Amino acid sequence: METKNDFQKEPQNNSQTEPKLSRRQLLKMAGVGGAGLLLGGAGVGSLFATGAVGAASSTATAQPAADILPFYGKYQQGIVTPQQDFFHFAAFDIIAKKRSDVRALFEKWTDAAARITQGQPVGDESNNQHLPPTDTGEAIGLTASKLTITFGVGPTLFTKDGADRFGLASKRPAPLADLPAFSADELQAEWCGGDIGVQVCANDPQVAFHAIRNLARIARGSAVIRWSQAGFQRTERAAAKPGTARNLMGFKDGTGNPDVNDDAAMNDVVWVQPSEGPAWMTNGSYMIVRRIRMRIEEWDRSTLQDQEATFGRARISGAPLGGTDEFEKLDLDKKDASGKPLIPVDSHVALAHGDGKVRILRRSYSYTNGIDAKTGQLDTGLFFVCFNRDPRKQFVPMQQRLAKNDRLNEYIVHVGSAVFACLPGASAGGFLGQELF
Amino acid sequence: METKNDFQKEPQNNSQTEPKLSRRQLLKMAGVGGAGLLLGGAGVGSLFATGAVGAASSTATAQPAADILPFYGKYQQGIVTPQQDFFHFAAFDIIAKKRSDVRALFEKWTDAAARITQGQPVGDESNNQHLPPTDTGEAIGLTASKLTITFGVGPTLFTKDGADRFGLASKRPAPLADLPAFSADELQAEWCGGDIGVQVCANDPQVAFHAIRNLARIARGSAVIRWSQAGFQRTERAAAKPGTARNLMGFKDGTGNPDVNDDAAMNDVVWVQPSEGPAWMTNGSYMIVRRIRMRIEEWDRSTLQDQEATFGRARISGAPLGGTDEFEKLDLDKKDASGKPLIPVDSHVALAHGDGKVRILRRSYSYTNGIDAKTGQLDTGLFFVCFNRDPRKQFVPMQQRLAKNDRLNEYIVHVGSAVFACLPGASAGGFLGQELF
Ligand code: HEM
Ligand code: HEM
Repeated sequence: METKNDFQKEPQNNSQTEPKLSRRQLLKMAGVGGAGLLLGGAGVGSLFATGAVGAASSTATAQPAADILPFYGKYQQGIVTPQQDFFHFAAFDIIAKKRSDVRALFEKWTDAAARITQGQPVGDESNNQHLPPTDTGEAIGLTASKLTITFGVGPTLFTKDGADRFGLASKRPAPLADLPAFSADELQAEWCGGDIGVQVCANDPQVAFHAIRNLARIARGSAVIRWSQAGFQRTERAAAKPGTARNLMGFKDGTGNPDVNDDAAMNDVVWVQPSEGPAWMTNGSYMIVRRIRMRIEEWDRSTLQDQEATFGRARISGAPLGGTDEFEKLDLDKKDASGKPLIPVDSHVALAHGDGKVRILRRSYSYTNGIDAKTGQLDTGLFFVCFNRDPRKQFVPMQQRLAKNDRLNEYIVHVGSAVFACLPGASAGGFLGQELF
Repeated sequence: METKNDFQKEPQNNSQTEPKLSRRQLLKMAGVGGAGLLLGGAGVGSLFATGAVGAASSTATAQPAADILPFYGKYQQGIVTPQQDFFHFAAFDIIAKKRSDVRALFEKWTDAAARITQGQPVGDESNNQHLPPTDTGEAIGLTASKLTITFGVGPTLFTKDGADRFGLASKRPAPLADLPAFSADELQAEWCGGDIGVQVCANDPQVAFHAIRNLARIARGSAVIRWSQAGFQRTERAAAKPGTARNLMGFKDGTGNPDVNDDAAMNDVVWVQPSEGPAWMTNGSYMIVRRIRMRIEEWDRSTLQDQEATFGRARISGAPLGGTDEFEKLDLDKKDASGKPLIPVDSHVALAHGDGKVRILRRSYSYTNGIDAKTGQLDTGLFFVCFNRDPRKQFVPMQQRLAKNDRLNEYIVHVGSAVFACLPGASAGGFLGQELF
């Protein structure tokens, strides 16, 4: 991998800019032949920059446009992007000692991510027999599969064991604080923390893995993977009727999410606003990940009534208890004949919903990791991912309510946790974290 | 789950029988309405028996025919079946004490497998609020996704610690012996053995997990999961051009496999023949699984030349070294100008191929399991699966050659291992292992 050293000379412009070239010009520049590379037009706040992507090498795959999400833009992809089928998360620890090395890593990562999200190899292939191949190769012949790579930085990037490691301590945003301990937490160090968090999503697990692995490879000498976890949801192809996916407790999961197409809601719930600061986080978002083990053996022995009362929703339809439609408004005041709330006050949705004013955007995946050596039970559950503008006002109070009273706690254990400040998007010629480093 | 107690009364007929009902009659019996359940016609040696599947419950999903593989038949599915995208393997240990309990377990498992492979829930749904749901629910709304479930029994079912546990010791087939230790093995007990091995494959990972989990649930009190591993290959949807999938070393994997549509080859390589015995294994096959960790960090540092010499094939095309086409015949006698073999004698394909007379059918998947706590490296590799008629004559001598001289050994470690006798198929009304128990 080469580092583009002329990045620094470019004007720092991180806000949304219009594409400077017509689609036709871009297509011409890309030069991959008619049936090949196409530029998908969708995506929130997106901007084309395929010109920045290196010339396609001989092993580049003809890419159906529908399978490509743009990389550059006001926001990073993978946040308000509709959920892909597969997920691979990795937390990295920085081993480099200098801020310039971290900066260089983000330059290289940006370059690689801009390429592989477009279905290109991580660098131009060479046929030099005496060098390792530039790209690890397992994605040759595969489409971009809506690959998105979302980068965030953790609290320990700024201060670790009290030390200002990279002279960045003063730049740490107040919302990026270590999460408080929650009652019921059973966190294990091996699933916690990280200087950098990378969320990879794609409609193919091999494409997702390829991304994580090549990022790790590029980071060699600068950062190492601290922990990682793959996840999935039912594939769109298997869904007889597309709609809300079910988690491994058999319930529809995601119903109550705010609408990612509602810009006002996203500005309210997800995106850090210019007024909030720090400037380098404007149009970024805070990502919280929690590796939540499900005690599925216990769950599978609980009655239907228990299960529905636990969530406050009907198992088959996903409707709020007492209702019939999955998407009808959650009315926590509805009572049965005896005056008892139809949706139990200690149910998961009642507590998570609260007064309905504080919301988060969830983007979780199921995971399975074989058998837990300690318990002999399946190590499986929900890899909870959420985005919010300020965890101190959104995720934290919500999780405090849940940790204390949620009926669901009987069937789950939080074993992993991390929080990251996801950078704003980069524009072509720039790189992620440019304003920070 | 109810056990069909009248199974015992039925004539034991495990050989292939013709369907007794016309497709139309079957469709009528299934009674799921026109657009719903359809009976896929493909499948090697398959036989329809949808009449045996319980009436579809309200939560049953309309099933596109192309997504369903028949369950009953001469052979079990999942052996010569073209590889699906996802894989979930589980090894079970029996905790029941009586042979009749093991027999009952296989009856229940057969019944459940016959249902879920057709996209039906594991048992008819009830709306009884005071009982746990019959099915765990995460596959509601998903198609059958070409789900196959393949059952095998391990050596320890017959004798464990010298004891004849279930009065079956005399029934153990000679080919079902513990594998010998191979040089270079670094086996870990947590990834080895099992009284029963279950291979689940499907085009959706949630459908595959659902199968394993419900089998474990049905087994409660009789058997527990000893270890398990999920796997994947690039999804067919992501493959720009369908063809041989690449493993995580970036090479096409599966090229040299015998043709699953060639019955003579399958009889030669895979299926236990009537002449061989024991009778209960006729039309069965021996499955070997090896969890093989790849040292991908080292691999990724090796040169293109090294990588191609390691496999004896070209990285991009998959052709034998010196050739141009992936599927051209492997000619180990070809020499370069200096008289050196074009395909190195210690390359993986040269050693695996040998004189070409002894073959196996490989059906492996990639796996990723986060970070290895001991080494800090990615725990990822190949979950090797193969089928053969007699491991003593096929897999074992092949692996002995590889373990001793394979160049690939520099980059891999065998950490898990197990061998199972996969039962012949069951016919409708019968159950898997009927002749054994
Ligand atoms: C294994 C753990 C969890 C499971 C299985 C789970 C499952 C569910 C389910 C089935 C629903 C109802 C459908 C929906 O709206 O998506 C729901 C709603 C929700 N959950 Fe969770 N959840 C888990 C953990 C969490 C955590 C840790 C949080 C945040 C602290 C959270 C926040 C929410 C919110 C905000 C809602 C929507 C409430 C509303 O309708 O306003 N969940 N969850
Ligand atoms: C991580 C471990 C392994 C990897 C990455 C691997 C990969 C490969 C690759 C890339 C090929 C060439 C393409 C093909 O024909 O499929 C191949 C061929 C083959 N491998 Fe492996 N393999 C592994 C382990 C094994 C093991 C344990 C065995 C059996 C003991 C085996 C048996 C074979 C056979 C029989 C062939 C075909 C040779 C022929 O063309 O006749 N492999 N393998």
